[in-house]
Amino acid sequence: MSDQGASLISSSSAPPPPPGPPPKVTNRGRAAGPVANSNADSSDLLDFEPFAAPGPRGFPPLTEYLDIWEVDMMRKPTEANKQQHHTDAFNSDYLIVRRGQEFQVKIVFNRPYKPAEDKFALEFVIGSSPLYSKGTYVPVFPTEDRQSSWEGCVKTTSDNTLTMGVTPTADCIVGQYQMFIAVMTPYGIRRTRRADSRDLYILFNPWAAADAVFLDDDKERQECVMNELGVIYHGAYDDIAERSWNYGQFNYGVLDACLYIMDKSEMPITNRGDPIKVTRKASAMLNSLDDNGVLVGNWTGDYTYGVAPTSWTGSTEILLTYSSSKTPVCYAQCWVYAAVFNTFLRCLGIPSRVVTNYFSAHDNDGNLKTDIILHDNGRIDRGRTKDSIWNYHCWTECYMSRPDLPAGFGGWQVVDATPQETSDGMYRCGPASVQAIKHGQTCFPFDAAFVFAEINSDVVFYSRKKDGTMDPVKVNQTHIGRMVLTKSQGDVTRRDITSQYKFPEGTKEERTVMEKAEGYGCKRETSNPPEADVDLVLPALGVSVGDDFELTLEFVNRSDQPRTVDAYISGSVVYYTGVTSSEFLFRDPTVKIGPKSSVKETVAVKSKSYMKKLVEQANLHFIATGKVKETGQIVTAMRVVTLHNPTLTVTVSGHNKANEEMVVTVEFTNPFSFGLEGVYIRMEGPGVMLPKFKYYSVIPGGSSLIWTEYFTPQRAGDTRVIVTLDCPTLRQVHGQASLAIKP
Amino acid sequence: MSDQGASLISSSSAPPPPPGPPPKVTNRGRAAGPVANSNADSSDLLDFEPFAAPGPRGFPPLTEYLDIWEVDMMRKPTEANKQQHHTDAFNSDYLIVRRGQEFQVKIVFNRPYKPAEDKFALEFVIGSSPLYSKGTYVPVFPTEDRQSSWEGCVKTTSDNTLTMGVTPTADCIVGQYQMFIAVMTPYGIRRTRRADSRDLYILFNPWAAADAVFLDDDKERQECVMNELGVIYHGAYDDIAERSWNYGQFNYGVLDACLYIMDKSEMPITNRGDPIKVTRKASAMLNSLDDNGVLVGNWTGDYTYGVAPTSWTGSTEILLTYSSSKTPVCYAQCWVYAAVFNTFLRCLGIPSRVVTNYFSAHDNDGNLKTDIILHDNGRIDRGRTKDSIWNYHCWTECYMSRPDLPAGFGGWQVVDATPQETSDGMYRCGPASVQAIKHGQTCFPFDAAFVFAEINSDVVFYSRKKDGTMDPVKVNQTHIGRMVLTKSQGDVTRRDITSQYKFPEGTKEERTVMEKAEGYGCKRETSNPPEADVDLVLPALGVSVGDDFELTLEFVNRSDQPRTVDAYISGSVVYYTGVTSSEFLFRDPTVKIGPKSSVKETVAVKSKSYMKKLVEQANLHFIATGKVKETGQIVTAMRVVTLHNPTLTVTVSGHNKANEEMVVTVEFTNPFSFGLEGVYIRMEGPGVMLPKFKYYSVIPGGSSLIWTEYFTPQRAGDTRVIVTLDCPTLRQVHGQASLAIKP
Repeated sequence: MSDQGASLISSSSAPPPPPGPPPKVTNRGRAAGPVANSNADSSDLLDFEPFAAPGPRGFPPLTEYLDIWEVDMMRKPTEANKQQHHTDAFNSDYLIVRRGQEFQVKIVFNRPYKPAEDKFALEFVIGSSPLYSKGTYVPVFPTEDRQSSWEGCVKTTSDNTLTMGVTPTADCIVGQYQMFIAVMTPYGIRRTRRADSRDLYILFNPWAAADAVFLDDDKERQECVMNELGVIYHGAYDDIAERSWNYGQFNYGVLDACLYIMDKSEMPITNRGDPIKVTRKASAMLNSLDDNGVLVGNWTGDYTYGVAPTSWTGSTEILLTYSSSKTPVCYAQCWVYAAVFNTFLRCLGIPSRVVTNYFSAHDNDGNLKTDIILHDNGRIDRGRTKDSIWNYHCWTECYMSRPDLPAGFGGWQVVDATPQETSDGMYRCGPASVQAIKHGQTCFPFDAAFVFAEINSDVVFYSRKKDGTMDPVKVNQTHIGRMVLTKSQGDVTRRDITSQYKFPEGTKEERTVMEKAEGYGCKRETSNPPEADVDLVLPALGVSVGDDFELTLEFVNRSDQPRTVDAYISGSVVYYTGVTSSEFLFRDPTVKIGPKSSVKETVAVKSKSYMKKLVEQANLHFIATGKVKETGQIVTAMRVVTLHNPTLTVTVSGHNKANEEMVVTVEFTNPFSFGLEGVYIRMEGPGVMLPKFKYYSVIPGGSSLIWTEYFTPQRAGDTRVIVTLDCPTLRQVHGQASLAIKP
Repeated sequence: MSDQGASLISSSSAPPPPPGPPPKVTNRGRAAGPVANSNADSSDLLDFEPFAAPGPRGFPPLTEYLDIWEVDMMRKPTEANKQQHHTDAFNSDYLIVRRGQEFQVKIVFNRPYKPAEDKFALEFVIGSSPLYSKGTYVPVFPTEDRQSSWEGCVKTTSDNTLTMGVTPTADCIVGQYQMFIAVMTPYGIRRTRRADSRDLYILFNPWAAADAVFLDDDKERQECVMNELGVIYHGAYDDIAERSWNYGQFNYGVLDACLYIMDKSEMPITNRGDPIKVTRKASAMLNSLDDNGVLVGNWTGDYTYGVAPTSWTGSTEILLTYSSSKTPVCYAQCWVYAAVFNTFLRCLGIPSRVVTNYFSAHDNDGNLKTDIILHDNGRIDRGRTKDSIWNYHCWTECYMSRPDLPAGFGGWQVVDATPQETSDGMYRCGPASVQAIKHGQTCFPFDAAFVFAEINSDVVFYSRKKDGTMDPVKVNQTHIGRMVLTKSQGDVTRRDITSQYKFPEGTKEERTVMEKAEGYGCKRETSNPPEADVDLVLPALGVSVGDDFELTLEFVNRSDQPRTVDAYISGSVVYYTGVTSSEFLFRDPTVKIGPKSSVKETVAVKSKSYMKKLVEQANLHFIATGKVKETGQIVTAMRVVTLHNPTLTVTVSGHNKANEEMVVTVEFTNPFSFGLEGVYIRMEGPGVMLPKFKYYSVIPGGSSLIWTEYFTPQRAGDTRVIVTLDCPTLRQVHGQASLAIKP
């Protein structure tokens, strides 16, 4: 209350100073002016807006009219505004509210407000050239007889103080507004001077029934808007691994960084109330291609000039680096794109979650075939096999109505910021309705056909003849899109949401859906080559990195004739994208199997054969193919073995109380005989710790390190301290400690 | 037949030389190899592909097997291939055929072909890493028992000569293929050496029923694929002007330039058989934004460093400049984008036409409102009126099936390469189904909602109150999308196709369509302010540039009370985009009108008041607004007066016979008292003349110029010589001479 008694209105009633130089107009002849496209633009509202030219002696003194002494945005986290708008967790000094819901502003006048005489309005302004018809300038009036699109009312008055309620429309623009108070006098409008402290943020509102992102499930809202702690699944569908992630949507600066992303994209301000347009634009902006967006993708294994994708522990560092450096951040792979996108969405108030699709067809432009090409003797032709199946792929789902589509396609929508090589010419994807994908309605925007292919493609094995033609010899319709996982609500367990994307394999509904998608131009393999009567079985294996192990390949002869198989067993180190790095094992046994019996072939795999060749996520890919001599039929089996990395031991001690100091200890022992060089350890935790890292130039073979760090939890609740260790020869090492902080 | 008797097959049967350095792989870990994305890439087919390693003495001589002495692609315009494939008009030495239709290749062997013994195949290859399963490598076999996806057959044999028929599938990739002939020996495949002369182009085929661009109307195909002469409409809907355009799709180098556009976009080769993907990509590539595409837009009136948009006479010069310089060409406005896009489409074989929409809402992102803001006294508020209505806007239509949409939305599709400021984040638009637009099915891709708004928006006049709020005072639902025109088939007259885009105003169907579009999220003005009982009428005017004239404004009082109107009459020079350049006239009469009567107010407009301010297309925009004193109602009227420019006199003399020299004379008299400086005259004509230009540093006031040029028509038919004159003070001056060339 330091400025009590001082007018916030410009005291001079002289005409305003001449405006500065006009903005540079680059679109002369094309449009009447540049498009407002930045929260950072300031408006051109004048302190005094005269209704007519002043007389020869200027305007009379306007002191008899209402004056503003103080404005209180009631922006403390403990005050009603942030409490009721579910924004108290934001680490921000500014008022943050959600649209379609009332918030309050307290005004101290120079004298009691007289409703019959005094005319004033709160003015909310966003971007340059604000205009009422565009929703970028909104006056809000206290009296019932005069209301604009946003409702206003007097809540209470007491002496000179008036508390006003303001309800933005449920479809208003989302972003950073400036607020002014305008008092109308017979000579013109007097207005409070611009002050940062009266800026406010208006976000999407999943709690408001009229908002396009309304989500009528409190548990889901808590998870998909309020929760900062993420669990992201990777590994293989039958050997699932997980990593924790700090979305950090409430951390200091993250909201500004999210708005900066839209400003950087030059997205017109007027489009920023539409969650469809906001999420589509963001799917382009989260990757650096085309538009210098947030994250640079890198799958090469060489991350010398940036942070390895496996090393990040959360989104905060990425977003703050981008908004301060204004250049793309290095480096990301799919889960980093998905997680940072998730932060963006939750921060702006759009419910969202990260999902993982196991065996994801990729880069194939809506084609429902992933081709694996074999020589005509049955051995895989690695030179000609260009398609790859990602062991897993992460994307983001966001929740919204879809008024642009027929009824029934609202709800969860896929958005994907990972750049795809051959999507619709642009490195962006979605929002694509999950319901549309499930029902094969691939005709609806945006990119539904593309996502449909990611979970529904067939794996087609071709045998390549000497003359260059190829015949399909085996079609596997169940390999791709094996499982879709996300984190459970309010829990750190996993939730299988495959059934939201597809009907069970083999059902009538599934066939109908595939036919519908084909009707919309998705191309499938239509031939149905006869099934071989010999099966190849490669069972699942749990192997730790550095172990020697045995791979057992079973040949099952279902016929009542003897069979001979010329088999080819190939073991390769692969990226998680399914791309082969190098082959470390090859065998070509000839296996004889009696009628109705089976034979096991065991292959010993020595760690020294694969260790030197490992790439970051340590996946070994075994593919066994063969040709049955008697029938000429082709048999195949594939198996991804995810090597289990050593883990970090993270222990926490202290009183588990908010605002009391605690200690975390990270321990790691190098399990190898060789030293690990260039090691980064990163650590952070939702509500407990901002990102920190330490660098170790070398951890000698067999030796241990201990890192002890003090931290002070900021709020009560279940959370985690999340730690990663990363170096060029060993990536994807995680650890975490769970905490239940008491108030 | 110069190489008769010489083998075209590499004579050495030694193993191939070691391959060169491997291609630079930039996507290691991300994908198995770079995506094939250029017609210019050559394949890696080997001259000899051994089936096994050679023995210690190498391979035996393979002379006993079939050898190839000569290959005749039968590529002369007068031969059957080009005749039957409607490609004889292309000025190209190469074979050009259309997919889904048989063409023939003649092969001379070293001895008669023995079907039982000899195994050979024609191999068609496009892009790098060709692969049968991707459609980029296609062998074609002569025997019925062995066929690939493309049908092959022996048409005739005679001595050592064999004529083979080849039928590419009707959905094959469109572009430039290389052809090889492979002979299979027991030791490996011997192959003809690479030779440019055996390259061929395969195009879309509107004559083939199985092709997605099939158009079952010969007159329409003649117009929309074969015709090079265009007429593009501009001016105003009630004062239509036209310009001729030479699409020049058959000119030398144009086909290569069109393929280069796709290569430059790095569009994957495998997508280039799909007309939806090709046209969508092209809509992005035809403008320079985002991707260094073909044409730089410029609406400023300053074209110092390029060619003024009004100066072009055809597409040839633009496309050849782009493909040789590999940088964007300066400058274009909407009709240039539409016309060059039309050339691209016709050249590749996709039926297409340029259409003009009069009063086109623009840059408003699917919003169905164009806002005009008035002060509360009724005068237009130019500072706040940001939306503009383009006097006309040209786009391109292309014809294709839409398997990605439900049945009924194939046929004509809108594609638009003019960059829109606020489209779906990208400077591209379409293909959007014209049927979907007509029926309000704006949910279907691509950008149907955007085009719907261009022809269906309402003009909403707002009165802005002192407190910043605005009330709609008049809604004009018929102004925008007043008429859509294209050139008639086989004629140079115009064809009104408005009914293909919308149902008649006021019908039940029209209301249903608007409701449906609103259901898909298009936002309309819903208020229905009462109509004023005073009408303002501004009649049409035909005025030549430089004339003084009178504007008559009629006030009609339909009530039985006297009325007083405080009127504001404003005359501005505007760009064709509707953007105001400068106001040259303002009157604010107060007009009293008796009951049931009318009053005329005449305003004299002197040429000197507007001449100095004219911008390129010389449009004067009059807007009359006013407030009725007695009722407070707002009245408005708008009128665009297109000033008629002087024309060029173009006369042609000669025998009107193909391959006989003729003379064209262009005459122009400067009608002004001042000199015209920096004058370019451009001239060309379909099938008669490639683009030529002359530069005159000054044409003194009142003086004349004559340019005489010799030319030789190349083929029979109706055509035109098209001429433009352009200088900074006078643009949009056309002339033409029609010719009927006899064979």
